[in-house]
Amino acid sequence: MSVDLGAFERTVGLPDDLSAQRAAERQARLTKPAGSLGRLEELAVWLAGVQGDCPPRPLDRVSVVVFAADHGVARAGVSAYPPEVTAQMVRNFLAGGAAVNVLARLAGASVRVLDIGVDVDWEAAGPVPEAVTAYKVCRGSGDLSTGPALTREEAEAAFQAGVAVADEEVDAGADLLVPGDMGIGNTTPAAALTAVLTGTDVASVVGRGTGIDDQTWMRKAAAVRDAARRGRPLVGDLIGLLAECGGADIAATTGFVVQAAVRRTPVLLDGVVSATAALVAQRISTRTTGWYLAAHRSTEPAQHYALERLQLEPVLDLGLRLGEGSGALVVLPLLRAAQATLAEMATFEEAGVSERAGASDGITDVT
Amino acid sequence: MSVDLGAFERTVGLPDDLSAQRAAERQARLTKPAGSLGRLEELAVWLAGVQGDCPPRPLDRVSVVVFAADHGVARAGVSAYPPEVTAQMVRNFLAGGAAVNVLARLAGASVRVLDIGVDVDWEAAGPVPEAVTAYKVCRGSGDLSTGPALTREEAEAAFQAGVAVADEEVDAGADLLVPGDMGIGNTTPAAALTAVLTGTDVASVVGRGTGIDDQTWMRKAAAVRDAARRGRPLVGDLIGLLAECGGADIAATTGFVVQAAVRRTPVLLDGVVSATAALVAQRISTRTTGWYLAAHRSTEPAQHYALERLQLEPVLDLGLRLGEGSGALVVLPLLRAAQATLAEMATFEEAGVSERAGASDGITDVT
Repeated sequence: MSVDLGAFERTVGLPDDLSAQRAAERQARLTKPAGSLGRLEELAVWLAGVQGDCPPRPLDRVSVVVFAADHGVARAGVSAYPPEVTAQMVRNFLAGGAAVNVLARLAGASVRVLDIGVDVDWEAAGPVPEAVTAYKVCRGSGDLSTGPALTREEAEAAFQAGVAVADEEVDAGADLLVPGDMGIGNTTPAAALTAVLTGTDVASVVGRGTGIDDQTWMRKAAAVRDAARRGRPLVGDLIGLLAECGGADIAATTGFVVQAAVRRTPVLLDGVVSATAALVAQRISTRTTGWYLAAHRSTEPAQHYALERLQLEPVLDLGLRLGEGSGALVVLPLLRAAQATLAEMATFEEAGVSERAGASDGITDVT
Repeated sequence: MSVDLGAFERTVGLPDDLSAQRAAERQARLTKPAGSLGRLEELAVWLAGVQGDCPPRPLDRVSVVVFAADHGVARAGVSAYPPEVTAQMVRNFLAGGAAVNVLARLAGASVRVLDIGVDVDWEAAGPVPEAVTAYKVCRGSGDLSTGPALTREEAEAAFQAGVAVADEEVDAGADLLVPGDMGIGNTTPAAALTAVLTGTDVASVVGRGTGIDDQTWMRKAAAVRDAARRGRPLVGDLIGLLAECGGADIAATTGFVVQAAVRRTPVLLDGVVSATAALVAQRISTRTTGWYLAAHRSTEPAQHYALERLQLEPVLDLGLRLGEGSGALVVLPLLRAAQATLAEMATFEEAGVSERAGASDGITDVT
């Protein structure tokens, strides 16, 4: 059965303006100079809106889902790492040794790893739990530098897998979803999709990924150019576009973030892969973006163009470019700080603290 | 007995280069592209250096000490808030309702509040625990726009109080010290000291503090100009300088951060007041700065000039300008993330993950 993307336009709603407005009003009554918590104040207001509640609730259940897949284009030599690293890293995630595991433990978040399209024979390599491959749609994608990355059926299945996984996480009580990614070569399809969906020059969106040299960059740019050329006529057929120049991980992540919006559950975007998925989601319904927060500015240029089009301003700029959802987990404590200050600080009245001259007349801060 | 600042030049050491070097080498062996954790990698290397240990240890005991004092210059109308707010906020800290309390609870840090020079009669206003006033040196400072803020004896006593408090916190097992500040008007002495110690124009260092209007800014700039003029001849007599155009909170914070360096204990600087104290500390011994990390870029311009002179690059830039140590607590989880990733991530070898081409030959990342 083919997926009806049009249905999402009718099921994605907007965050709750009234809760956001009440949160902004509460910020002004707390024992601090108005605006002195800077960006944290905006984050708390956003959180109140997506939760439909003021003050916002603590983010107790944060679910990271890492969608792992291989990309045929990696065989064309676009990455600093060999393709077998994708499967090796899946095992590293399961063993708890990767950055996303360490950061999730620190932040009290859960990590779920899904092989959505890894090019590996797990029986031969050493088995992994069945749940890891439950949504697998392919063993690696085709080389998008020469032809489609996925069949239409694979792209649909990956998208639907992301939808199903989002439902499962929300049904299990997730307060916040974090899409993670693992796939050698995955910044190449991300760059191609971003070039198509933002109308940006190929040379501008192609970055250094895991740290490639000039020769590799030129091969990557050529691959992105050729994929984007085939993708441009498909902007009205997003599943077709994901099949032509995406990959199983990006298609699944797209379904995941779209369904999060349907389920009125906030999403903390990580790097270039999740930003690309959000960019596709924006075409499915422009309302999706209100449910997303961009955690950090990646060093990948495609992420910059994607976030610009999404009108999302990242919270941090620390030169992170690891993926896995790791950057989002670095930002999670800041979102929690925003929530806690808005929810727990005393008001001027409660604490018996004098307000600034004019504040009680409803005059707002001039700075 | 007068304080011998020269003694600090002999007792402040440098962080441990060898541990930092080992940390940098370990970063390159972890299962991530080299450099992909961006600034976090540098933070972990810094932490290894100041702890003298690789991998660095978790920051389990973080102590925030809020030095509260009033400033006579506030009576000259340089703040958006009335001076009585300082005492009211001390009570708010003790009740746990301020931003620093909320953020400390979230981060598992302790908050100690000290009235070092608040202009209040606690008996009349309602008593506070004795420990709060144990180091009190004065009831507010003099108006630095017309004369010295403190007597030399008061400045020395405040500095020595900061030294004693740092010793107490380190003796109690603190892994990291956070200097906090509360004092209506305190960005005025901070601006004056920064103007003197960085040679910056008065108009450049004077900011909007808690959110002042143009008229108030002009009064503040005049006060800073007059204090800085009297302070410039005193750059060789730092206690004299702190007395002339500082305040009890800044003098105490200076002693606090200097002694932290003596005790080889890292300090997470917050906003403009702690940056100013670090700037004075730099004159006491240039080696102190290696023990400090600048948490965030404040909106106060004086902090910008102070950090530039300290050659400290802040981790975050979120428009924070609250003080209390709050900004440092927002950054603390990032420092913990840096520590945890370096200490807990698997290496390529441990995880059986292939390294990038050339990595095993000792060729370092080119990006």
